[in-house]
Amino acid sequence: MEPIIQFIQSNQNLYVEELKTFLRIPSISTLPENKEDMKHCAAFVADKLQQAGMSRVEIFPTEGHPIVYGEWLGAPGKPTVLIYGHYDVQPVDPVELWNTPPFEPTIKGDNIFARGATDDKGQMFIHIKSVEAFFKVKGSLPLNIKFIIEGEEEIGSEHLEGFIQQHKDLLKCDAVLISDTSLYEAGLPTITYGLRGLAYMEVEVAGPGKDLHSGSFGGAVANPINVLAEIIAKLHDKKGRVTIPNFYDDVLPLSKEEKKNFELFNFSDKKFAKELGVQELAGESKFSTLERLWVRPTLDCNGIIGGFTGKGAKTVIASKASAKISMRLVPNQDPKKIAKSFTKYIKSLAPKSVKVIISNLHGAYPTLSPLTGKAVKAAAVSMEKAFNKKTVFMREGGSIPVVATFQRILKAPSVLMGFGLNSENLHSPNEHFSLTHFQLGIQSSAYFFEEYSK
Amino acid sequence: MEPIIQFIQSNQNLYVEELKTFLRIPSISTLPENKEDMKHCAAFVADKLQQAGMSRVEIFPTEGHPIVYGEWLGAPGKPTVLIYGHYDVQPVDPVELWNTPPFEPTIKGDNIFARGATDDKGQMFIHIKSVEAFFKVKGSLPLNIKFIIEGEEEIGSEHLEGFIQQHKDLLKCDAVLISDTSLYEAGLPTITYGLRGLAYMEVEVAGPGKDLHSGSFGGAVANPINVLAEIIAKLHDKKGRVTIPNFYDDVLPLSKEEKKNFELFNFSDKKFAKELGVQELAGESKFSTLERLWVRPTLDCNGIIGGFTGKGAKTVIASKASAKISMRLVPNQDPKKIAKSFTKYIKSLAPKSVKVIISNLHGAYPTLSPLTGKAVKAAAVSMEKAFNKKTVFMREGGSIPVVATFQRILKAPSVLMGFGLNSENLHSPNEHFSLTHFQLGIQSSAYFFEEYSK
Repeated sequence: MEPIIQFIQSNQNLYVEELKTFLRIPSISTLPENKEDMKHCAAFVADKLQQAGMSRVEIFPTEGHPIVYGEWLGAPGKPTVLIYGHYDVQPVDPVELWNTPPFEPTIKGDNIFARGATDDKGQMFIHIKSVEAFFKVKGSLPLNIKFIIEGEEEIGSEHLEGFIQQHKDLLKCDAVLISDTSLYEAGLPTITYGLRGLAYMEVEVAGPGKDLHSGSFGGAVANPINVLAEIIAKLHDKKGRVTIPNFYDDVLPLSKEEKKNFELFNFSDKKFAKELGVQELAGESKFSTLERLWVRPTLDCNGIIGGFTGKGAKTVIASKASAKISMRLVPNQDPKKIAKSFTKYIKSLAPKSVKVIISNLHGAYPTLSPLTGKAVKAAAVSMEKAFNKKTVFMREGGSIPVVATFQRILKAPSVLMGFGLNSENLHSPNEHFSLTHFQLGIQSSAYFFEEYSK
Repeated sequence: MEPIIQFIQSNQNLYVEELKTFLRIPSISTLPENKEDMKHCAAFVADKLQQAGMSRVEIFPTEGHPIVYGEWLGAPGKPTVLIYGHYDVQPVDPVELWNTPPFEPTIKGDNIFARGATDDKGQMFIHIKSVEAFFKVKGSLPLNIKFIIEGEEEIGSEHLEGFIQQHKDLLKCDAVLISDTSLYEAGLPTITYGLRGLAYMEVEVAGPGKDLHSGSFGGAVANPINVLAEIIAKLHDKKGRVTIPNFYDDVLPLSKEEKKNFELFNFSDKKFAKELGVQELAGESKFSTLERLWVRPTLDCNGIIGGFTGKGAKTVIASKASAKISMRLVPNQDPKKIAKSFTKYIKSLAPKSVKVIISNLHGAYPTLSPLTGKAVKAAAVSMEKAFNKKTVFMREGGSIPVVATFQRILKAPSVLMGFGLNSENLHSPNEHFSLTHFQLGIQSSAYFFEEYSK
C-alpha cells in the first residue's frame, strides 16, 4: 500500500483544486431554480468517475434529479463494494450569515468553506480519488467497485428507492460504503452503526378567507398563528416527551452494552452547551444527551411563517400560518405509521374555527447495523491505519434514508465511514470540511479496498 | 346649503380623479425605502389644502415623517374645528393577492381599489373637498378650520404627540373631526364613540448560536420555534382569556345602556362568520361578538417567522424565531402598564435554555367620547341630512391613538365621523372605498361645518 498512500499524499493540492470546482456548482436539490445546476453537477460527477478509471459510467435520469452510476468489475472472485454518496446540497439561507459566498469555495487554515463541503461532496469525492489512485499507481483495483451517486438526498431520496428496486442486479454487491457521517471528534476514526429516521410534515392552519385588521376583527375570530402555536405547544408534554398517541410504541430500548459504550465517550453536557452557545441543554427528561441525540425520537419545528414579518408593525390577523415539523425516528419506528399518527393527532387538536392541511413531505427509516460484519471490521482497521488511532463506534442523530433501503432491497450491510465533524456547520451557514480529514479519508478508503479484498 | 351640495354632487368625477393621484403615491410609513414617497405625499396634501382655500399651509418636518398643517381663521367668534387625518398607508404584502396593483387606483362598480383608499386617504380627502366647495360657492367658511394631517398613523404616530404638545396654541380648537372609522353598514350614518387602544410588542427567542442540523442536534437543545410556540400558547387560557397577570384589572365593564344599544344592531354571528369565511367564530367565552370586538381586550399574533420557510424541506433547528404580538386595549387599560406586564410575564415563561428579547413597538390609549357633546350632536344631524337616515352610535375595535392625545393635551372632544366599511379590506389586499360614501362624506362634512357653526 506504501506507493498508493504516497501518491495520495503527494496529490493533495490537485485533489483540493478539483473539489473546489465540484463545490462551485450550486446543486440545491430542493429549489426549482437550480434544476439545471443539478444536471450540470451530475455530469461533473460522471466525468470524474470516468477519469478515475471506471469502465462504465452512466447518468440515469429520474422524474427528479439524475442518478450517476459507475462500475469497474475487473476483479472476478473478489467482493463487490457499492459506494453511495450524494451530489445535492442544502439551501444556503440565511445567506447573509455566510462569511464567504456559499458557492465560492474558500480555504481558511485547514478548512475549505462552501455549501456541500462536508455534506456530502467533500466526503463522497474521497472515494473517487482513492479509486483513481489505485488505477494510477497499480493499474487496477483489488476488488470490484460500483458507484451510485444521487441528487435527492437532501429532499428525501424520492426516486432512489424505485431506482434501486428496478436495478437490483446492476447494484448487486457485498457491502455498501457510505461517507456521509461524522467523526466523533477531530482525528478520531469512527464507524457509525445506527442512524435515526425521519418523518417530515407540513401543517397549514387556515382561518379567515383573507387577512384582517386586528383592531376591527381581533377578538371575534380564531387567529391562525395563535392556533398553530397552540397546536405546536401541545406536541410535547412538560417532560419533553412527544404527546402523539402511540409515538413511542415501537422504540427499541438501548442495550446495556451500548449504554456502556456511550459512557466511554466522556461526553460533557457543559462543553456541548458552550459549543452550541446555549446556557443549558434541553430535551426529554431522564435520558443522557447522547441518548437523546442517538437513540430517542424527537419532534422539532424546522420552520414557521405567518402574518407580517417585515420590519416595524402591521396590525393584521393573517388568513393562514404554516409550520414545517419533523420527527427524528429510532429503530423500530416506521415513518409511515408515525406520519399517520401525527396527522390524526394534529387534526384532533385543531378547533372548528380553522381548517388544517397536513402534508407528508418525506420520510426515512431508522437503521442499526451489526458491529460484527466483515465490511464493518475492515473499515475499522482501515481507518485505524490511516488515522493511526483506535476506531470507535457510535450512533448518529441524522438520517441517511438509503441505508435502510440498501438493507431491504439489496440485502447488503452498509458501512458508515464518515470523515465530517458535527461542528462543520452542515445545513448551516459557513459549512466547511477539514482538509486533513479529506486526505486521511482518501487514505482510509484506499486501505479499505485492500482490507476488504482479502 | 343647497348650492354647496349641488356643487359637491356635480364635481364628483373631478374629486375621484384627484383622489386617484393621491392614491398613486406609495406612502408606506413603515418601510424605509418609501421615505421619499412620504415626503412627496406630504407635499401633495399641502398643495391640496392650499388649492382648497386654506390661508396658511405648512409642512412641519419631524424626526420621522412630516406633518402637514393648514388653517383658515376668517370666522372670528365662531367655533374652530381641527380636522385630523393621515396620509400614510399600510404595507401591501402579500402583494400577490391583489387583483390590481395596490398603487394603481382602479374603479370597479362603486368602488375604488388601492392601498389607502379607505384608510385613510379617501376619508380625509373628503374634508379637503368640502372646505373647497364652501370657498368656491360662498367664498368663505361658516367657522374656523385647522387641518393636521400626519404620516405616521400606521406606525404608532410616534412624533405626533410631541408635535401637539409643542404646538398647543396653533392647534387650539373646540372639537376635533376625524374620518378614519367605518359605517356600521353601507348607507347607514354612524358615529363611533369608543375606540380600543393598543400595545404592540415583538418577542424574539434566541437559542443556539447558529442554525443546527435537526438530525445531529435534535433532542439535545431547545428549539426556538417550539419554545416561542409554547410561550404564545400560554398567553390564552381555555376560555380564550388572556393569561397575563392583572391584564383585566382596569377594564371598564359595559354599561346596561350600551349593552341595550348593541342589541339594536341585530348582529348575526352566522352572517359574520360567513363573511369572514370561517366555519365558526372564536374568542373569549361569555361575551357577545360585538362585546368581544368593541369592549373586550384581545391578544393576537400579527406575525411569526423562524427557520426554513421556503418550498420543500430543510432539516434545521433555527437559531432564533420571532413573533409580533399585539393587544387591543379597552378603557381604562394603560398601554404602558400592559406592555410592562406582558414583558414580565413572557420572561417568566421562557426556559433557561433560550434567551428572550422583548421590544415594545408601539402603544395607543383606548378612548370613550361623551354622546352628549355639541360637536357629536352636530355630526349626527349632518350625516343624517346627507344620508337621509337616522344616525347610529357604535364603538370600534381598532385604535386611533391621536383621539386620546387630543383629549389629553388640547382638552378637545373628538367626533369620529367615519365613511369606510369594515369590509373594505383595510390593512389587507384589495383595499377599496365606496364612491357613494365618498360623495355622501363630502356632503356630511359640509353640513357639519354649517351645523356646528350655529
